[in-house]
Amino acid sequence: MSPQAIGIDVGGTKALALLVDREGNVLHEVRTPAPHDTDQGPGVALAHVLAAQIDEICAATGLNPQTTPVGIGLPGLVTRDGTLAYAPNLDSASGANLPKLLHDIAGVQSVSMENDGNAAAVAEHAWGAGRGASEFAAITLGTGIGGGIIANGELIRGRSGFGGEVGHMIVRAGGIQCACGRQGCWERYASGTGLGVLTVDAAREGRLPTLLAQHGAPENVRAEHVTQAAAEGLEEAKELLREVAWWLAVGLSNLVEIFDIGHFVIGGGLSTAAGELLPVATKDLVSLVMAADKYPAFTLEPAVLGARAGALGAALVGMSRGA
Amino acid sequence: MSPQAIGIDVGGTKALALLVDREGNVLHEVRTPAPHDTDQGPGVALAHVLAAQIDEICAATGLNPQTTPVGIGLPGLVTRDGTLAYAPNLDSASGANLPKLLHDIAGVQSVSMENDGNAAAVAEHAWGAGRGASEFAAITLGTGIGGGIIANGELIRGRSGFGGEVGHMIVRAGGIQCACGRQGCWERYASGTGLGVLTVDAAREGRLPTLLAQHGAPENVRAEHVTQAAAEGLEEAKELLREVAWWLAVGLSNLVEIFDIGHFVIGGGLSTAAGELLPVATKDLVSLVMAADKYPAFTLEPAVLGARAGALGAALVGMSRGA
Repeated sequence: MSPQAIGIDVGGTKALALLVDREGNVLHEVRTPAPHDTDQGPGVALAHVLAAQIDEICAATGLNPQTTPVGIGLPGLVTRDGTLAYAPNLDSASGANLPKLLHDIAGVQSVSMENDGNAAAVAEHAWGAGRGASEFAAITLGTGIGGGIIANGELIRGRSGFGGEVGHMIVRAGGIQCACGRQGCWERYASGTGLGVLTVDAAREGRLPTLLAQHGAPENVRAEHVTQAAAEGLEEAKELLREVAWWLAVGLSNLVEIFDIGHFVIGGGLSTAAGELLPVATKDLVSLVMAADKYPAFTLEPAVLGARAGALGAALVGMSRGA
Repeated sequence: MSPQAIGIDVGGTKALALLVDREGNVLHEVRTPAPHDTDQGPGVALAHVLAAQIDEICAATGLNPQTTPVGIGLPGLVTRDGTLAYAPNLDSASGANLPKLLHDIAGVQSVSMENDGNAAAVAEHAWGAGRGASEFAAITLGTGIGGGIIANGELIRGRSGFGGEVGHMIVRAGGIQCACGRQGCWERYASGTGLGVLTVDAAREGRLPTLLAQHGAPENVRAEHVTQAAAEGLEEAKELLREVAWWLAVGLSNLVEIFDIGHFVIGGGLSTAAGELLPVATKDLVSLVMAADKYPAFTLEPAVLGARAGALGAALVGMSRGA
């Protein structure tokens, strides 16, 4: 395993590049807006930005940009050979093979790729709140639900590399339409977007009278109004967050039935905004799991690596899979 | 790994014991009714029956009953140390530690235990329809849904050993009540019991007019009437089986999202009774999986080891985990 690697987390709006050592220390950091033009072909503009990030880090630290291992985390389905097969939030790079592009453009020799949720799980497993667990899941509650699962001590990657898409597990067949084309995906209920939908529904049904009075119309009541009001102690808002916690627990309980995971690391905007989410979801999880009293205690722990988790995990992927 | 082992599959009504070699050949077979009395304590009567089976096989084949490795598959949650923690269909042995009982009763030195669905998956992986797949799931559609999953080439066992309970994955939160206490478990929709419930509902809703006329009242129309009539070409019955196939595909699609499994082995009574189930479910699976066109083809293959799968897998567990 290489002593250090560059990890880059590419999102819809920016690319965060870190130089990371084997202990997970960040030695250098570069942040650049993600380009979205496709004039030169899918992913080419992005590859140029990443090559410049690699150059900048290497120039600052005396490394060789062609031989330093690089790992890249991407929001979408990434094949085992490094092609971004499907990426609705990074469409300009959809279909691109970034390892090949970086090799052709800048001579970078060792580039490994991974889904961003999987990369975050790898990082929390090595250096964060999942340390030492041979079974654990890292769940990120953002716009959707990102996730990565470690079982038998190894990342669940799957046949093509598409494993870990837990947000698109159907928990209510025939339920709310998801952007992915399915109905009733977990992320329609237990993410920031899910809270937004539940909020409007609850306002329409008269379950948020105070917030409705403040904002005038049901569709004006937003998820952040609920998290804010709950933090200030408004009972109707806390009640709605308890509903979201229950939906969170439904998906987690499925992961318990399937994997017998005892430890979950929960991150993302919703998890930090919704104060009581994790304790409430833990109780709901115990009430949902079949024969829960036969299991040791379940723990839901906040993610500790924050917005850097994806890039840190990408670096670790680069270190361990690279030359 | 031992050259041969005794594998015993304990069900609610009988225990099937096989002597199996490394290639999966069955060298001897004994079948005994499973006892349900608990006069001597949980599992003691069962342990005596199993000890007698071990003795009978060893007497017939010249093996030493104390040193021949034994694997046991059981219907329930089995801990990694061999305790049957929860077994609604084998309540008389619930809480028993069979390795310890067999050691105390008959001096059997090497006993390994596994859930029966996991054991069947291990057998199909080694010697059956899952051979060579590094990711695959074996799904048994019986009264409920049994299952076992191989990922990264290894059985998903989980923290306590309770992994693989895919039948209790919630696919419709708030849905049909399951015997396990949860609502909307996959096995309420895509098992033999699930077909029975869907049948009565469909008969009530007027969707099975021919069968209703034949059997008089909705609650008299049973699952086997539907599979029989479908085999004879009755369209209303075939339509209902297509509904079950869709529910089957919903759960499989979740396993695709989570594990990126490409190959499923489907066994059990319902799968053999419902002729078109697998081809229809395969099409539904493709329509359900997010970005399915980015995946290689999915295959649903009938299980090949039949009613012996659990005992064969138990033997393999005995061989590989035993002394």
